[in-house]
Amino acid sequence: MTDHSRTPVTVLGLGPMGQALAAAFLAAEHPTTVWNRTPGKGDQLAAQGATVASTAAEAAAASGLIVVCVLDYDAVEQILAAAEPVLAGRTVVNLTADSPDRARQTAQWAAERGIQYLDGAIMTPTETIGGPEAVVLYSGPKDLYAGHAPALAALGGTQSHLGEDPGRAAAHDVALLGIFWTALTGIMHAFALAKAENIAARDLAGFARGITDLLSPSIDGFAANIDAGEHPGTTTNLLSAAAGIAHIVHASEQHGIDAGLLRAAHALTRQAIADGHGTDEFTRLTDTLLRHATR
Amino acid sequence: MTDHSRTPVTVLGLGPMGQALAAAFLAAEHPTTVWNRTPGKGDQLAAQGATVASTAAEAAAASGLIVVCVLDYDAVEQILAAAEPVLAGRTVVNLTADSPDRARQTAQWAAERGIQYLDGAIMTPTETIGGPEAVVLYSGPKDLYAGHAPALAALGGTQSHLGEDPGRAAAHDVALLGIFWTALTGIMHAFALAKAENIAARDLAGFARGITDLLSPSIDGFAANIDAGEHPGTTTNLLSAAAGIAHIVHASEQHGIDAGLLRAAHALTRQAIADGHGTDEFTRLTDTLLRHATR
Repeated sequence: MTDHSRTPVTVLGLGPMGQALAAAFLAAEHPTTVWNRTPGKGDQLAAQGATVASTAAEAAAASGLIVVCVLDYDAVEQILAAAEPVLAGRTVVNLTADSPDRARQTAQWAAERGIQYLDGAIMTPTETIGGPEAVVLYSGPKDLYAGHAPALAALGGTQSHLGEDPGRAAAHDVALLGIFWTALTGIMHAFALAKAENIAARDLAGFARGITDLLSPSIDGFAANIDAGEHPGTTTNLLSAAAGIAHIVHASEQHGIDAGLLRAAHALTRQAIADGHGTDEFTRLTDTLLRHATR
Repeated sequence: MTDHSRTPVTVLGLGPMGQALAAAFLAAEHPTTVWNRTPGKGDQLAAQGATVASTAAEAAAASGLIVVCVLDYDAVEQILAAAEPVLAGRTVVNLTADSPDRARQTAQWAAERGIQYLDGAIMTPTETIGGPEAVVLYSGPKDLYAGHAPALAALGGTQSHLGEDPGRAAAHDVALLGIFWTALTGIMHAFALAKAENIAARDLAGFARGITDLLSPSIDGFAANIDAGEHPGTTTNLLSAAAGIAHIVHASEQHGIDAGLLRAAHALTRQAIADGHGTDEFTRLTDTLLRHATR
């Protein structure tokens, strides 16, 4: 039976992630109301005890805590505008991914309407939600987060409040997703190059796992260099990195493989070398990336 | 005391990796002769028992097994040409990183001169050499590798013979280094974007480790899709990947950060979508990368 002493929660947006969020709230026995723009997505959740609302406003009216997770902030804006009449005094936790500026704009929009607002970012895949491996980041008013933390704990794993700036979670999100997507694109490039060299993906896979396992243990050392602004080229200097990347570009283009990703990495290393940093550690690239930074 | 029943080994090139290789052979009690183009690099190895030769030919003449590890194959060619008078009948194991075609050309050059040749690639950092975490790949004649495997075991960890094609180790090398360098460049981009958002590198580091830890467990699934030529968009389809990457480009360029790497990844996803694969899994990008492949 549902425990009605638990906080009611509304979930707006029932894509794969929204469904996972709603299922986690249900599993933690929160009375859960769901809504999706196109109907039918809530059927399975209804079978688990969710109430399916027919409009966003009706769904929002059911709970003091309203979680939104849709494609982007354009969709968020439309949904919140539709629900606006009932949102004042309630809390919107927006777990949709977008840029820090959009998060700050949405926070401003909410503040002007008396809507309490937390922005968040989900850092782990759908299947982790509700389990020990989930990672969700939040930013916005600290007291507001503290009040809802017990309910948000239903999402599992590590829930972290990063600060009052509503853009801070989204800033972490875009930075970290940049690692994810460049690495994933690099992995696809590796499989493509292997295929052109008659190496089956399954034969490369074990070695590819070995390479990705080298990344995590290096990160604290990179961070120390960057925070200190010191980049001693003792491990991998930019000259040898540029030479290595050039080999990959060359080998790829000999096969007619699109080497745009590697060419972009190579251009950055060459810019750093042109700036006089050839014997510096690879971490010097952060300065190269920021050389035209406006703020 | 040095055990003179062990195979004598020569190491040509005493950069950080060459020094690590020579130290590993010395630690395994192989009589070890070393040489470097610029003198002085062998002093510490001499103190550990190495013989320092004054020319590449003199160094090569001291051993039946000659390991070469220098900046690139242009340097390899010069060194082997200088040592050529004594190389016939000996085995050269070239652990210098370059492209598969250069490996095949060097193997051809060696074959024409009666020089036995194995090409190799070192997949782990200098400090792993001689320890359990070292990974070194070899290609070339299988029997030749088998004969030298006991001596090469001194380099530690996992020593793997990948096949007779002398370019096969280098093909693995360029594919795998492509993962390494794109991921590392993506990590630098993340730290740069964080800095622009007033997030210290040390504060991002833990989350960055978390993101890189997601990569390895995904790789066998990617490989299965690619070998099967089936890319069901059940986990991450290209449309949502492209939307996510666009957020990162947008957030970066708002700060004046060079987004060339992310723009290259975005261009690939958009090409895949234009080719009609928007609802396919991200692994479909291997086909996009290979769409103009010539062989």
